[in-house]
This record gives sequence, structure tokens and C-alpha cells, in this order.
Amino acid sequence: MTYCVAMALDAGMIFASDSRTNAGVDQIARFSKMRVFARPDERVIVMLSSGNLSLTQNAVNVLELRNREGDAAPNVMNARSMFDVARMLGDAVREVRVRDAGYLEQNNIDASANFIVGGQVDGEMPRLFHVYGEGNFIEATSETCYFQIGESKYGKPVIDRVVNRTTSLTDATKCTLVSFDSTMRSNLSVGMPIDLIQYDTDSLKLNHRRRFDDGDADFSALSKDWSEGVRTVFRGLPDVKW
Amino acid sequence: MTYCVAMALDAGMIFASDSRTNAGVDQIARFSKMRVFARPDERVIVMLSSGNLSLTQNAVNVLELRNREGDAAPNVMNARSMFDVARMLGDAVREVRVRDAGYLEQNNIDASANFIVGGQVDGEMPRLFHVYGEGNFIEATSETCYFQIGESKYGKPVIDRVVNRTTSLTDATKCTLVSFDSTMRSNLSVGMPIDLIQYDTDSLKLNHRRRFDDGDADFSALSKDWSEGVRTVFRGLPDVKW
Repeated sequence: MTYCVAMALDAGMIFASDSRTNAGVDQIARFSKMRVFARPDERVIVMLSSGNLSLTQNAVNVLELRNREGDAAPNVMNARSMFDVARMLGDAVREVRVRDAGYLEQNNIDASANFIVGGQVDGEMPRLFHVYGEGNFIEATSETCYFQIGESKYGKPVIDRVVNRTTSLTDATKCTLVSFDSTMRSNLSVGMPIDLIQYDTDSLKLNHRRRFDDGDADFSALSKDWSEGVRTVFRGLPDVKW
Repeated sequence: MTYCVAMALDAGMIFASDSRTNAGVDQIARFSKMRVFARPDERVIVMLSSGNLSLTQNAVNVLELRNREGDAAPNVMNARSMFDVARMLGDAVREVRVRDAGYLEQNNIDASANFIVGGQVDGEMPRLFHVYGEGNFIEATSETCYFQIGESKYGKPVIDRVVNRTTSLTDATKCTLVSFDSTMRSNLSVGMPIDLIQYDTDSLKLNHRRRFDDGDADFSALSKDWSEGVRTVFRGLPDVKW
């Protein structure tokens, strides 16, 4: 499995992904599920992926191939809007699935693929999309300002309690890390390192990016402080009346 | 779906279950998933169930039928240990599935059934079991002191952060309710009322039992206090360094 989450807030965007891939319990490997396409002062685009690694990697490879062909044809680096980028990603995953999915399904191999793609292209506001394996997609709104893909349930309640469109990037970033900590404690198939990006609206630059590896001191401290804080909150809640 | 959780702590036990049953999104009904077998100063036994309602109800019906036959044969009300009770429940669900499961599977109807059964019979310590649809079962230990069945993921992280064998019943009860609140916010198929029991070790009496119905003021207050407390903890966490 995988866990990825992205948020579109007034102040900016958060992107985070884990790096564990597994086929069963004995083929465990590290693959980053975050891919960045950026040109300073012009565009910052981040893609997160979950599902069958060959499908998701190759969909991104298809996009990269187009980028290398330059401005002769539409690609992620010359797209005029995030909507165009989401369409290109949808087309790319369709192309890969047309080629591969039938063969995977013959052997009952999971042929799912999910993407979150978001960012900002100069001339429009930041936008966030969830692109499905079928190539269709939806966009985040002010009511639903975040998307999760992969093993999403364990880490969802804490986001629902804390994050809305007006939450500060500082709080949303901490909440994202706690959401990952909760997920990794409960599901072995989600694991370090965690790739984290915080994007400030209209900066059109990638100023805040960090990788949290196994045993990262800051991450451990955050996890410990959170657990202690939660226990303190419980002690302060009113007792149940019988 | 359903959500049930039970904990075996040093101070006693907690049992909780929701009451929503659904077949698709348009056949929603209320059924309590908690069944109590008790005789003061002798035994307190609580069963929680998830899965196909006809299978789980009828397994309990089979046990009730045996109880009515009195002491001529072994039953839940004359069992000398919780281990015997877990075996009887396993046998009962096997009996019902032998009769019904084949017919359900012909029409691709979910034939799953899961039970949590726990309590105390005079002469032994409180014990807690997870009985599977196949009739086999496992027992809670000091390392793993709680079981969940049904829609368990949303409500798991908060329990993992707060509850261990030595947690007070007061805190564990509050944590259980927060776990339900987190689950119900994320999954429409889990719903009020919530049945809650707190059992004090060696009391052999059912002293603390409560139903939380839609709009219960105490439950709403707990949920609100918890959300506010969590946001306060976030504000106090150290900011992420980039």
C-alpha cells in the first residue's frame, strides 16, 4: 500500500507521500511516490501516486517523454492551466492501462492507479485534482479541500478535526505528519521516508521541501508530543455519566 | 457496516457497539449489536457482532435456545469459563453458516460474521475473545488488550495512542466514545445509538450501562471538547523545520 495526502488551503498547498512498496509481505522496497515538475516564477506541479507501481511510474514516464519533446506539442511544462495537466495525466494513465491492464488482470494482479496532482501555473490560482485510474478526475473545492489516496482511513479523522480551507500552513503541515504517524503505526505497508512539500500561494517557487527518513529526530519528537498532548486532552474531558 | 470495540484492562472491561445496519444505501435500519447474558454475583457476559445480520442474530438465537433448555446441557448461563462460552459461540456460528452460507454465496451476498465476546464468570478473571465466522477464536492478552470488528480503521489510532492494560476505565471509556465519534464522522454506515458497557473487575454485576442516542447532549459535548482539545495540541506542537 501507500499513503498520500494533499491539501489546497487559502495560504497554499501541502503534499505528502510515503515511500513503501510491497508485493505481499516479503517484497518490500522503497520508491518515492512524489514527482515534481517546476520552473521558478512560472509553475510548481506536484504528482502523488498509489496503486500498481508499474502503471503509475509509467504514466509519469509518458508525461516526461512528452516534456522532453519540447514545445512542439502540449506537455506538463508548457501547459497553461492545472486543468490541462490533470487531463494529460488522465490520458497518460489511460495509455498505460490500455497497454498493460489486460495482462495484469489475466493473473489477478491489482491494476489500480490513483493520482493526486496539484500546484500552480502562472496566471491562475493553485488547484488540486484527484485523477482516477480510469483517467477521469475531480477537483478539490472549499468544502472538500484535501484528497487522500492509498491507505487513507487511519489518517483521516485527525485531518477532519483540524483542517479546513482557512487553516494555516504551519498547522496543516503538522497535522499531515501526525496523519502519517497514525497510519504508519497501524499499517505496516506504509513506511518512511516521508516526502513533504509546503507550497505558498503565488510564490511559484518550491521553497519548502523535506524528506523525513527512518528515525528522524523532529518526526519522533512530533509523534511523542502529539501522543502526550492527546492523553492530556483525555484527562480533561468530562467523565461519562451512567 | 458496523463498528464494535471491546477492551480488557486491569480495572475492568469496556464494550461498545453502534446500531446501524444497511444493505446498500437505501435499506438502513437500527439493530443493537450488543447482547448481554448476566446473573448477579455469578456471571456477566457481553457479545458484540458484525457482518451479515441474519448469521450473527441467529448464532445468538441458537445460544438462547440452549439457555432455555436449562441445566440439562451446557449453555452460556451454566458455562464454567469464558473459554467455554467462546467455544459455544463458535459452534453456534458454524451451525448457522452450515445451514445458510451456501445459499447466500450463490447470490454473492456477504456471509461474513465476527464476534467479540467477553466478561467474567465467577471463579476466573475477566476474559475477552474475538470469535471469527469460521468458529475459531483468539483471546486478548496484555500486549493486545482490545479487539475491534466492523469498520475499525478510522477509530483505531486514538485507541493505540491512549489505551494500554493499565489505563483507567474512566479514560478508556472516553477514548471509546471518541473512537466512535471519529468513525461516524467518516463512515455513514456506522451510526447512533451507541450501546456502552463498563464492567468493573470482580463486581460480577452490570453496574454501568448506557445508550447514547442521536443528539445525546453528553456525547455532543465530548465530541466538541475533543475537537477543541486536539486543535489546542496542534498549536502547541513544534513547527516543522525546513
